Amino acid sequence: MTAEQPARRPGGRTARVRAAVHQAVVDLLGEEEWDDLSIALVADRSGVHQTTIYRRWGTLAALIDDVVTERLTSSSPVADTGTLRGDLEAYAVQVAEDVASPLGAVFLRAAMVGTRAEGEEQPRQIYLLERGMQLQAMLDRARDRGESPPTLLELLEVVLAPLYFHVIFFNSPAGADHARGLVDRLLSLVAKT
Amino acid sequence: MTAEQPARRPGGRTARVRAAVHQAVVDLLGEEEWDDLSIALVADRSGVHQTTIYRRWGTLAALIDDVVTERLTSSSPVADTGTLRGDLEAYAVQVAEDVASPLGAVFLRAAMVGTRAEGEEQPRQIYLLERGMQLQAMLDRARDRGESPPTLLELLEVVLAPLYFHVIFFNSPAGADHARGLVDRLLSLVAKT
Repeated sequence: MTAEQPARRPGGRTARVRAAVHQAVVDLLGEEEWDDLSIALVADRSGVHQTTIYRRWGTLAALIDDVVTERLTSSSPVADTGTLRGDLEAYAVQVAEDVASPLGAVFLRAAMVGTRAEGEEQPRQIYLLERGMQLQAMLDRARDRGESPPTLLELLEVVLAPLYFHVIFFNSPAGADHARGLVDRLLSLVAKT
Repeated sequence: MTAEQPARRPGGRTARVRAAVHQAVVDLLGEEEWDDLSIALVADRSGVHQTTIYRRWGTLAALIDDVVTERLTSSSPVADTGTLRGDLEAYAVQVAEDVASPLGAVFLRAAMVGTRAEGEEQPRQIYLLERGMQLQAMLDRARDRGESPPTLLELLEVVLAPLYFHVIFFNSPAGADHARGLVDRLLSLVAKT
């Protein structure tokens, strides 16, 4: 009885180009020489002209950031479990899993080195802005239910920063239990104030 | 009346080679094309033979890590102020200042990309080991005085991780006041348990 959905054409050629280029970046980042990534290589792999890529993204850093932003925000959507603790735990465990996956770790590093050719362009903030809005929505839901959520900065500093820190500096992801422990810490900080 | 200290010769030629190579790495990291850093470039700049550098450090990643370890541990020695809060604040403010300096930020990024050519060698742990021992000594002093220090992991997660996070992801250092706020947070967590 369900009507056949009409096939969606999200942007046609533009979307196909974007998908092909993104996929090429993901594939290349997963390979041995990922730090040699260049727009020329991406053009080669994707079959999209180099000039098209330059026109659309401008720089390799901007392209990487676009890919990382899309992957990270779509790979760990923010859950709506009905409680602040539930949402925070789902989020923290998901991030711990994402950064522990081989590609996740590669993305994380790519995000960090994305600016190296262009200096201080701060594309990081673009990613944080989008993810930050998702998280702010989670905190707003909690407040609407009458709970006392932390601030977004507290969430980033107490939960997210350590999860990234473990991968970057210990080269060893934190795991789900540890992620839940960070949520405990955050909630106990909020309960104190 | 003070006797003239005899000039110290810390290792002679070996030490001179190390100093020259380290200085070359520092200089090159401060330049525009720092991500093109290679052992060949370091040899060129330092006047030390490439084979000597390879024999001594093995890989570019190991060399960068040696430099970063020495710089970061010597540039922010752990103070002994007589109180846990004083030590922690001095340490946190120092780290905030270090990572905010242009070279500090470059070092931080260099530390993160140091492994990229060699895969998962985990040199990060070497740096953390040395710095970790200094910090553990700070915490042990506090315990010896009868204070209740946090664990080393709590210190790294609650204070260090956010300071690095601000630089890496916000591309904007946290500042001294914020660093002291992180120490407050850490001490309030410890007081709770």
